[in-house]
Amino acid sequence: MSKPFTIGPLNHVGVAVPSLPDAIETYRALYGATDITEPFDMPAQGVKVCFVNLPNSQIELIEPLSEESPIWNFVQKNPKGGQHHVCFEVDDIHDAVSVMKERGATVLGEPRIGAHGTPIIFVHPKNSNGVLIELMETPKGDH
Amino acid sequence: MSKPFTIGPLNHVGVAVPSLPDAIETYRALYGATDITEPFDMPAQGVKVCFVNLPNSQIELIEPLSEESPIWNFVQKNPKGGQHHVCFEVDDIHDAVSVMKERGATVLGEPRIGAHGTPIIFVHPKNSNGVLIELMETPKGDH
Repeated sequence: MSKPFTIGPLNHVGVAVPSLPDAIETYRALYGATDITEPFDMPAQGVKVCFVNLPNSQIELIEPLSEESPIWNFVQKNPKGGQHHVCFEVDDIHDAVSVMKERGATVLGEPRIGAHGTPIIFVHPKNSNGVLIELMETPKGDH
Repeated sequence: MSKPFTIGPLNHVGVAVPSLPDAIETYRALYGATDITEPFDMPAQGVKVCFVNLPNSQIELIEPLSEESPIWNFVQKNPKGGQHHVCFEVDDIHDAVSVMKERGATVLGEPRIGAHGTPIIFVHPKNSNGVLIELMETPKGDH
């Protein structure tokens, strides 16, 4: 029998922002963050992202690449930016998806490769106290 | 010379919810969380809170105690709940407050004792990409 499904570490908090350079400057100049990754485009997701590395977790800064971006409307509604999602690690994404569905949650789309190179899915905010939850397969190996 | 100011670990993500028991049930039944603390009232802050303990961090679930609660309006606007704040640890709260002010940020109120028993302050969302940031002095000793 496989072990019961449970979420693992809080991998990151996703913050949607109108401008990555401005947001990076905030974390660097105001909060003194010293380890911020280089921004990179994820055209399939319609976003440009970078990570503020903290000792135990990360802030994912996300800027829409265009008006087609899934976060475009969010940034229109929140012109300064705002908390967009919380990401928990899971051992196996396919196991997670079937558990979520079995338990009545609405899984958004099919598993796809996320910013850490492992498969992810999102669970609808209506299932989790208004919070959009990303589930991400824990990176194996050098992460 | 003291070391330069920087934020430490991501202590927790604060999620405001209309009902702690329902939110606890979500984390237990849907996400399989097994370590959730007993809810307790913080009358001075107008909230009842509990923590979902994850291997590296926590989700703080927060329910307003009354209409006077500072999160009452947030829950009215977000009736299912929603991400309310992100909390970073700092070495020294008084140092953090003076650095924040020196750097032009709006610190909300004076340091007060937070849910972990150490002093906290909040930084206005306008200073941090629309995200309300809590700074919390790292608990010393048995934490």
